[in-house]
Amino acid sequence: MIEPQIPKGFRDFLPQQMMLRRRLMATMSAIFERYGFVPLDTPCLEYARTLEGKYGEEGDKLIYRFEDRGGRAVALRYDLTIPLARVAAMYQLPKPFKRYQIAPVWRADKPQKGRFREFYQCDIDIIGESGACADAELLCVAHTVLQALGFDNYLIRINNRKILNALAERLGIATERIPDFLRALDKLDKTGPDAVLQDMQARGLLAGDAGRIVRDHLLAGGDNFEAVAALLAGSGDGSAGLAELELISRMLAADGVDGRYYKKDISLARGLDYYTGPIFEVVVTEPRIGSILGGGRYDGLIGLFTKQSMPATGISFGLERLVTVMEELGMHNQAGSLTQVLVTQFSADLMDDGVRLAALLRRSGLNTELYLAPDKLKKQLSYAASRGIPAVVVLGPDEARDGRATLKNMLTGDQDVLEQQRLAEAIRALLA
Amino acid sequence: MIEPQIPKGFRDFLPQQMMLRRRLMATMSAIFERYGFVPLDTPCLEYARTLEGKYGEEGDKLIYRFEDRGGRAVALRYDLTIPLARVAAMYQLPKPFKRYQIAPVWRADKPQKGRFREFYQCDIDIIGESGACADAELLCVAHTVLQALGFDNYLIRINNRKILNALAERLGIATERIPDFLRALDKLDKTGPDAVLQDMQARGLLAGDAGRIVRDHLLAGGDNFEAVAALLAGSGDGSAGLAELELISRMLAADGVDGRYYKKDISLARGLDYYTGPIFEVVVTEPRIGSILGGGRYDGLIGLFTKQSMPATGISFGLERLVTVMEELGMHNQAGSLTQVLVTQFSADLMDDGVRLAALLRRSGLNTELYLAPDKLKKQLSYAASRGIPAVVVLGPDEARDGRATLKNMLTGDQDVLEQQRLAEAIRALLA
Repeated sequence: MIEPQIPKGFRDFLPQQMMLRRRLMATMSAIFERYGFVPLDTPCLEYARTLEGKYGEEGDKLIYRFEDRGGRAVALRYDLTIPLARVAAMYQLPKPFKRYQIAPVWRADKPQKGRFREFYQCDIDIIGESGACADAELLCVAHTVLQALGFDNYLIRINNRKILNALAERLGIATERIPDFLRALDKLDKTGPDAVLQDMQARGLLAGDAGRIVRDHLLAGGDNFEAVAALLAGSGDGSAGLAELELISRMLAADGVDGRYYKKDISLARGLDYYTGPIFEVVVTEPRIGSILGGGRYDGLIGLFTKQSMPATGISFGLERLVTVMEELGMHNQAGSLTQVLVTQFSADLMDDGVRLAALLRRSGLNTELYLAPDKLKKQLSYAASRGIPAVVVLGPDEARDGRATLKNMLTGDQDVLEQQRLAEAIRALLA
Repeated sequence: MIEPQIPKGFRDFLPQQMMLRRRLMATMSAIFERYGFVPLDTPCLEYARTLEGKYGEEGDKLIYRFEDRGGRAVALRYDLTIPLARVAAMYQLPKPFKRYQIAPVWRADKPQKGRFREFYQCDIDIIGESGACADAELLCVAHTVLQALGFDNYLIRINNRKILNALAERLGIATERIPDFLRALDKLDKTGPDAVLQDMQARGLLAGDAGRIVRDHLLAGGDNFEAVAALLAGSGDGSAGLAELELISRMLAADGVDGRYYKKDISLARGLDYYTGPIFEVVVTEPRIGSILGGGRYDGLIGLFTKQSMPATGISFGLERLVTVMEELGMHNQAGSLTQVLVTQFSADLMDDGVRLAALLRRSGLNTELYLAPDKLKKQLSYAASRGIPAVVVLGPDEARDGRATLKNMLTGDQDVLEQQRLAEAIRALLA
């Protein structure tokens, strides 16, 4: 006998969990399409060379890499962005190319609470449009999705790598040290302003008055954009970045997003090296679960695969985090049953009548389960009760002969004998 | 620069292809739920020992197997049945457990026309019910799905391993040679009756009058069940198998499946060793593309993972075959656009008005794309035309000031100036 086990960091999703996950994915897909995004699917397996060297040193180590039977180095996809970049380079796609993809990715990470080796990402990206209108649209979609799922306590944080680059320049940080500077800043939420300042100093990034500027303007709340604008006066990158943030705010307002849901935040850095413009993050503020969405503009990334220049911007929802918050806050109905009515079986003789009746109910659009073998009525009723099926149709020999059936409301216990043709309508009334 | 490539035998699905695939999956899920099946998801990666030794010698070679970073032997799932058997053994699931799963599987097969290394299976299975009513329900679902997708030229072939086992016994074939016998029979559709008979003789399976019986009863049409019943008179397995086939036919008829869609066929063998009772296959007869669905009862399989005995039966749709047939027969509208209306952008000044108008249309439920940067109207219209977007809303400065907009029907070229509040209604009329 083989011990039934799954690899550590991997999960089965049983039907009750799947119902929430499927609802989430369906809500997202519908809203993505509402905004003109179209679906794309890419293989779970890519050539290793397609993925390697894109996720930083730490990320690269987490790639599930192996050799296939032909000795080729392949890898399970690590995210949905690099495969999209490959697709954009491989095919002549009409631009702007606005795609969504909801699919699992794999990371050979140390499994821990809330961190898995296989998890779903839900991405939207816009390729071929360099204006900040595209970036803003992604955030409008994010807000619409979160509202539709019933979220309210969240904050969309917005910044721009152009501003951070200009600021680094103003601080006297050499271009090649900027990734170091951003990595240090990215730890702010985890370690706090003092630790970040110390870290930057220890890395030798800050000389002269740079420490004071970082403390007063970058790490103190992150929303004093007037002071930042003054600091960056004369910087082309700086003013471009600030203008993009303005445009994004304007579009969010025009789309009807209330100001309490978003915030320009100069201290937002994001971890990935490849961002080139606006960057985003959505944090849930209650419960404090951290980031449920991240993203930004990556105008240089597709250039790794093609000589054509293709601006691009995207965001990625973390499905697992959304599920966790919804479960913790009781934002979904755990007890729901997909099946709306159970048709019981009285005896082998009446099986045909039961099948016919179930077919009738299904044709009317009701999710109908037929009890699959004759059994004691009591057992069939307790089966329906244990599954949370709200209605049961009992079909005995007299009723079958007369073209009738008994409809039992499992919540109230009420029951009625009805013409079979009128059952569907009565069940709908019961469900309403 | 990295050459953008995907591994051989793997595919990207661009939006036009995804629309058909998603429609197929949505239709199937809805019908599966209509019959009381609930969704399950299992990891793409399993321990290699969970999969190995279950698919026969040939199948085992095709498993994508590798070592993870901790040195554990893992494998990409080869089908959805073995992971389900593991799940059934691992958790205390209420029975009958009726689950569906639509997900990719991987086989390191030689890529060729219509055969891929990554492809989707769509499975339904019933665990915990030994009666043939469960088997019959699977076929009712299969028929309902195929009808809903617009298929008509197909045949559900039904047989029973109990009958084939009884027949093998009657032919004097030793129990341990029965898998050989079934494998030879399974080649009937590919090689024809003469080759199968020769193969069985070459394997030394047929002695005495066995060759004649095989030729006359097994390989000649496969539907002379009276003769088979006479041959198997007195065999417990034989009569049990025949009674199950009768019950399945009765249930199909009661569910409203016309007799021309199914056929009891004594010559159907199916390739897998683990089937124990009813077995099924659906073939598309026009075009002759072969099997689009297979399945059967596998009462012993879950016992590989647990001491509890759990009867089980299931079927698996091949999504890729369905897609191929639908494309070949032109059964879907290739030209469809998910986006229903494009809102144009006149100038940077009017961006907010455009965003507001797009938001209004989206709130009314219309899939609405906003052109993401101001551009020449002609270019924006030709963008809509190239995407097949049926309606365009043009918003110029005068119209924006008056709360109006121009609605253009891209099919007829007609256009009208309307109040913005009346646009959604007019677009719906245009789409209808």
